[in-house]
This record gives sequence, structure tokens and C-alpha cells, in this order.
Amino acid sequence: MDIITTRELKERLGELQGQEVTLRGWIRNHRKQKNMGFIDFFDGTCFRNPQVVYDNNLSGFNEIQALRVGSAVRVTGKVVPSYKDPETPEIQASAVILEGDCPEDYPLQPKKHSVEFLREIAYLRPRTRLFQAVFRVRSVAAMAIHSYFQDRGYVYVHTPLITGNDAEGAGNTFTVTTLPPDRQGHPEEDFFGKPTSLAVTGQLEGETFALAFSKIYTFGPTFRAENSNTKTHAAEFWMIEPEIAFMDLPELMDLEEDFLKSIVSTVMEKCPDELKFLDGFTGGGLLAKLTALKESRFARVTHEEAITILRQAMEKGTDFKFEPTYGGDTAKEHEKYLTEEYFHSPVFIYDWPKEIKAFYMYQNEDGKTVSAVDLLVPGAGELMGGSQREHREDLLISRMNELGISTEEMYWYVNLRKFGGCVHSGFGMGFERLLIYLTGVDNIRDVIPYFRTPMNCDF
Amino acid sequence: MDIITTRELKERLGELQGQEVTLRGWIRNHRKQKNMGFIDFFDGTCFRNPQVVYDNNLSGFNEIQALRVGSAVRVTGKVVPSYKDPETPEIQASAVILEGDCPEDYPLQPKKHSVEFLREIAYLRPRTRLFQAVFRVRSVAAMAIHSYFQDRGYVYVHTPLITGNDAEGAGNTFTVTTLPPDRQGHPEEDFFGKPTSLAVTGQLEGETFALAFSKIYTFGPTFRAENSNTKTHAAEFWMIEPEIAFMDLPELMDLEEDFLKSIVSTVMEKCPDELKFLDGFTGGGLLAKLTALKESRFARVTHEEAITILRQAMEKGTDFKFEPTYGGDTAKEHEKYLTEEYFHSPVFIYDWPKEIKAFYMYQNEDGKTVSAVDLLVPGAGELMGGSQREHREDLLISRMNELGISTEEMYWYVNLRKFGGCVHSGFGMGFERLLIYLTGVDNIRDVIPYFRTPMNCDF
Repeated sequence: MDIITTRELKERLGELQGQEVTLRGWIRNHRKQKNMGFIDFFDGTCFRNPQVVYDNNLSGFNEIQALRVGSAVRVTGKVVPSYKDPETPEIQASAVILEGDCPEDYPLQPKKHSVEFLREIAYLRPRTRLFQAVFRVRSVAAMAIHSYFQDRGYVYVHTPLITGNDAEGAGNTFTVTTLPPDRQGHPEEDFFGKPTSLAVTGQLEGETFALAFSKIYTFGPTFRAENSNTKTHAAEFWMIEPEIAFMDLPELMDLEEDFLKSIVSTVMEKCPDELKFLDGFTGGGLLAKLTALKESRFARVTHEEAITILRQAMEKGTDFKFEPTYGGDTAKEHEKYLTEEYFHSPVFIYDWPKEIKAFYMYQNEDGKTVSAVDLLVPGAGELMGGSQREHREDLLISRMNELGISTEEMYWYVNLRKFGGCVHSGFGMGFERLLIYLTGVDNIRDVIPYFRTPMNCDF
Repeated sequence: MDIITTRELKERLGELQGQEVTLRGWIRNHRKQKNMGFIDFFDGTCFRNPQVVYDNNLSGFNEIQALRVGSAVRVTGKVVPSYKDPETPEIQASAVILEGDCPEDYPLQPKKHSVEFLREIAYLRPRTRLFQAVFRVRSVAAMAIHSYFQDRGYVYVHTPLITGNDAEGAGNTFTVTTLPPDRQGHPEEDFFGKPTSLAVTGQLEGETFALAFSKIYTFGPTFRAENSNTKTHAAEFWMIEPEIAFMDLPELMDLEEDFLKSIVSTVMEKCPDELKFLDGFTGGGLLAKLTALKESRFARVTHEEAITILRQAMEKGTDFKFEPTYGGDTAKEHEKYLTEEYFHSPVFIYDWPKEIKAFYMYQNEDGKTVSAVDLLVPGAGELMGGSQREHREDLLISRMNELGISTEEMYWYVNLRKFGGCVHSGFGMGFERLLIYLTGVDNIRDVIPYFRTPMNCDF
């Protein structure tokens, strides 16, 4: 008789009917009647959990009835048809053995807990149904991303986390040091002999690999020391940054669209039970939103066209708090209008005013815009940001000079343009932002195992 | 006519014979004769690169002959049989168009460069054959690891990098701070309101997820502020840490053995050209070593048995610099003897003296040892370290007290034992250590895209 997981039980349910199996896991709920009992059992390998039924013919009936919620148990029993739901396995127990006890005051009693309370017991929350769903989606989505790129010949690159660059602009970074407090300010004595911080992007190093392997991607942690307490900001999060040689902006949009649809499809295929639960938990509409995304054709407009659409809407009476202006950034309300009311689909906005975008973006002929593109999606706003990179050495240098970015310190980045530089493009996607979109859970704190935000660094 | 990659060219070589294709990539070498020329072309998607042949019938012959090594080019031509090697594609060019120029003083001229020189130009070294091989193996091995666990129902967990824990023992960590130099030493004013550092392990948080999902793994960066300049130490490296509920030590060894053989098999299958090159580059023996590993049965001995074997060897005349002692750690020379001379196979050494192992390891009945296991492999020494975890609350607490580790600060880790705790085990493997083993390249600086070591934080 095999010891199996609940995932195997689900996958082999037909074949296992009538067979005896052994499972190991935990008690989520335990309902007792005089002559029998029902255990909601889970082992975390599968969202669809079996119910364990036992009656008073079982030796040790009284001890089993005394088993508390949260305990680890080993259950042996026959797989029987469920009366409630043919797809939910039921086990008629022949033995239930305690593997690890749990006291009465276990915080995860079978009742509704607020997500705020669950954050305080973040080390236990993965045992709840909500976080079983969220963190499996997280794992499946991560794998889907790896598979997408690897299947297409991309090389996975681990860009450095500790960096001496300050290229994306000073501030907002965490300092990394081994100096004692009284020797701070003497970077020449520090571990690396110079000031170092935690990386805010892997893109620049990613570009060096793209100009060697043609197609690369990164997938790693990223850090921002922004003192903002919003639902979408965390100090530590994971980011995906593909970079592709010989790719221009329209091709980049093709890639982003295909990539996102593919990830959504894979997660829908691999996590149907989890998404169904999340759909209900988040008030409905999640599955419809994801299905619509897969089937939609993403709109593509320039920043100028987008502003025109927004200004026309304003003239027709749409009430924006911020006025949409040519040359200016868009606000959340604008993004919402474009995706949810105007296009009813994801929207690429490209050719942004160069003043509000980064130094490394390809400068368009018009002298005013750069080949940058943001992807906005209904219900989540900006999901990806990308650009064709400035591959012309002279134009890159003059832009860096304008912005006061040291071409000397960044000699290697500039030299990429000199040594066989070519058209290339890439985008970045915050992994947690994707997860917020995929799960419908609206707070970044609830899609990260252990979140780091201002004044919060627990566990 | 399609634009294809060299990988597609290799995979579809038969079908494409006689067809015209376009490729985009770089010139690695350019040999010129009076009436023709040969370009060693690469785009990084494939290790087996085509040769581009052109002759003076081609319009622009003189301009093409002037193309320099390192330049980015677009090549169009007919796929023709190669005289040299039927598996190496050859392109009879009908057009070679410069996409990005490269000057005479390009550092990567077609001659042998030392690895030390290539580290100085780490942003260009991925274009060399050595690093094309190494970093593709890195990417393929990373994917093989993800696939191994995901195929077996493990959940991928991103454990936090910034941590307030100091559980593995003080020192050797990087401090993370946003305080200016003159406010250091006032952690209450810092970003998280307390002292924080970069994580040295994700295991403890991993355990919290294993007791919710049964089988989990981590794969992320890890940091050590060790001031050691050896071939195997880096301040920033990637680590894999699976953790499995209801698994004991013998089962953990089964897992480690199966896992390692599977990764080696996958890399051998997916990177035959790269490994063949690396085998030659590293002096031969790499492929034989990897093949032997796949087919070997890993030996299993207790620490005590290992010491007995070593002492017997010493008595018979083996010259060790360090005396093997019961209760003591083993030295590199001992590991070498056990794997390469005694067992001729990988060796698990288990049941280690508890004084030299970590607080969280399962305390054996003998009162002297813990259920820890190190995996030693021929040619690389220790590759994995694991243990069954102490799941008995009282024994964990008394061990933490003995070692002065705060049970109050680590309340959540202790509580895991109280709330449905169960037998569980896990191991850790340094990803770069695996890569040193897989590639035969013996310096950690050469298997990481941008290495961080004392006084080195470039790019």
C-alpha cells in the first residue's frame, strides 16, 4: 500500500477507487458526530482536498475524535465515492495516527480570518485556503515564465544583486555594508572597497548578455527603498527582465502580448481549482477577466494618441482629477479609462516624451520622444514597461551627459554600443504585479511569502 | 525567406539544405583569402556555429572583406553542405550587411585569452566560446532544477533576502540600511526600524512553507560577507534549498541522489556540444566524470565509519596533513580520499557530531550525533548539506538555549514544532558549486555572470 499525496489521489482518483491508501498531512477542520467524524484533510500538494470519514467501529475512535485542528496526521483508508462532489475524494479511514499535535489555542481555527490578521501570522498563513491558492499560483506562474523563455531559446541570466552602479538615479536604494557604525562614510574600508547598494534592475547587465546570446531573461529579486505604504509597493520584490538583440519596438510589443497570454493560459490550465476559489474570494470576475485577456487583441497607441483620446473624453464630460497633457505622464485614472472604458482591452502606449523616461531609451526621429512602451491591463494598470534601447553611442553619451550620468563609471554600458552594438529591446515586469493581476488579491503583502515594507521585516 | 537563429539552423539543418536563410549575429573570426572569405559567425543561441563563406562574385566584396571581428552583421545565404564537418552548418552568403561596427582595438580578438583577463572584461566575456558554454550550462541547469521539482509537485518559494533574523550565527552578514553615515547605530530610525542584513539561507522560512505544502524548494541568491579569497567563495551566490515534510534522513539521501543524477543527465542531454568543448578546455575527464556519476550508486557511511576508514588509511601509510578524528570535521584531503580513492563514487556522510553542526538538526538517540548528511562528490568535495530537522519542541529549545540562540526572536520557528510539527528534512546546494562540478571550470568567478568577492564589485 502506497503512501501518496493528495495530488496523486486527485490525479489517479478513478484507478484508486476502492483501494487502500495512506496520506500524510494536516487537519484543517474536524467535525464530530456521536458515532462518526469528518476531517478536512490537506497536505498542500493539491487544492482539492479529500474528506476523511471515520466511524465508531474504528479502534481508537475516542482518541481520533480528540484530534485537534492543526495537527499533523497519517491517515490510512479506502478511497470511496463522495456523496457531496464526485471530484472531491473521500477516504473511509481505517487508521488515523497523530504525527504532530496542535494545541487548542492554534491561531488558525476554521473560521474567517482577516488578511491583516493573517499577515501577523505569516508563518502559518500558507496553510489557509487563500494562501494555498495564492502561493501555488505564484509557483506555477514562475515556472510558466521560465518555460516560456527556455522553450524559445532564451538564456536565463542571474544579474548581480549587490551593485556599485547608481545608474538608474541616486536615492531609493539600500546601502550594503560590513562597516561598523563608527566607520561608516569610509567606503574604501568597506567589503568591496567602495559604496555598494542593492540592485534596482538587472537590465543593464542583461543587455551585455543579450549582445552575446541574442535572447536572454532575468528573474530575480529587486529592491527599492521607497518609503511608500501603498498596496502595490514593497521594498523587496521579484522581477522578470528579458532582453533581445535585433528586436525593435513593434516586435517587443508582439513579444509582450504573446508572453502575457501564454502565462495566463498556463496558469488557468494548471490551477483551475485555485483560480475558481480566488474568483469567489475576490468577489467574482477574475476568471472572466483572465479569459478576456487571452482572447483580446491588445490595442497599440502612441502617447500622443492616448492623450488625445483622454482629452476628448474630458471634453465630453469624463471627470479626471488630473488633466491629461501632451508631454506629461498618465495617471491611474487615465490608464483605467483607456483600458476599461475606451479600448476594453490591454493597451500598449508607446513613443513617450523623452523627458519622463530613462536615459537608455532609443531616441526617435522627432527629437521629442523615445521608443518606450508601457503595457496597461484592465484592472491592474501598468504591468510591463519596456523600450528599444539606444544603441547609437553618440546619442547615448549625449543623453547621459544631459542627465549627469557618468559615462566613465558606466564605460562598459557605453562600450556595448561600440563593440558590435545593434538594435535591441527589452522589458521589465514586476512579478508581484503579475500575481496581483492573476489572483485578484489586491495587496502586494498577500502575494509575497514574507513581505518587506517600511517598518516591516518580520520572520 | 525567414530570419532564423543558429539554433533553428542546427535543429532544421536537413530541411534547410539548399534553402536561403537570414541570420543575425556577430563575427567571431574573419579569415580572408584573395578571392573569398570565411566568417566564424555566432548569435549565441547555439554552441555549434555556422561558417559563412563568400567569394568575390558577391557585390560589395571589398566592404565585406573589411568587416572586423566583433561586428554585428546580418547574413543572407544558402545553406550548403560543409566539407569540414557535416554537422556544422555552412552558409554560402548572398549578402552580408553590417548592423553594428566594431573597432580594431576590440579586446576579444581571436586568440587565447586568460580567464583572468576575461574577468576584467566580464561584460564582453559571454561572447567567448568558453563563456557561451558556461553560461548556457548555467541556464540549462537552472531550468533542469526547476523542472525536477515542479514535475514532482514541489512549490517554488521565494524566501526573503532582507532579514531581521540572525539565526545562523552573528557575523559574516552584510548590513542593509538606508541611514546616512552619521545616523548609523540608530536602527530604530532605519527603513525597517531595526537592524537588517542579507539572508545567508532561506531554510528557516522554507520550513514554514514545507509544513503547509509538504514539498517546497527555494532557488534564489544568498549572501556571505566572508573575507576569503578562494576559488570557491563568493559574497553573492545562488542556492537551492528543498524542504520536505514527512521525510526522514534516509529518504533525504534518496532524494539528493536522484536529484543530482537527474540534473546531470538533463544537462548532458541538452548541452552535448558545450560539455564536449568544456571537456577539452578543462583538460579532459569531464564527460567521463559526469557519466560515471549518473551510473554510480552513492555510498552511505556514518561520520564515525568515515573516520574509521580514514584512520585505517593513515595507518596503512596514506599521508594526511590533518589527522581524522572522531567528533571532528573532515578536511578536503579526507573528502578526496573517500570519494576518489576509497569508494570511487559520491559518498553520503551522515550522523555528524552535534557540536560541529547547526542547532536545527535532529538529535539522534545516542546523545552525541545529529541526523545531518553531507554529500561529497569526486572532484568537487561537498556538494550538498542537509539534515532531518529537529521537530521536537523541547529538544529544539534546549539546543537553542545551549547555543545562545534567542527562542523569543525565533518564536515562529519554534512554534512550527508546536502547531502540527512533524518529521521533515531538507538540503541546501550552492548553485555555483554544482556548476563548477558540471563545467569543470574550477573558479567560482568564472561560473557567475558578475562575481562579487572582497574588493570586487564591478559592472
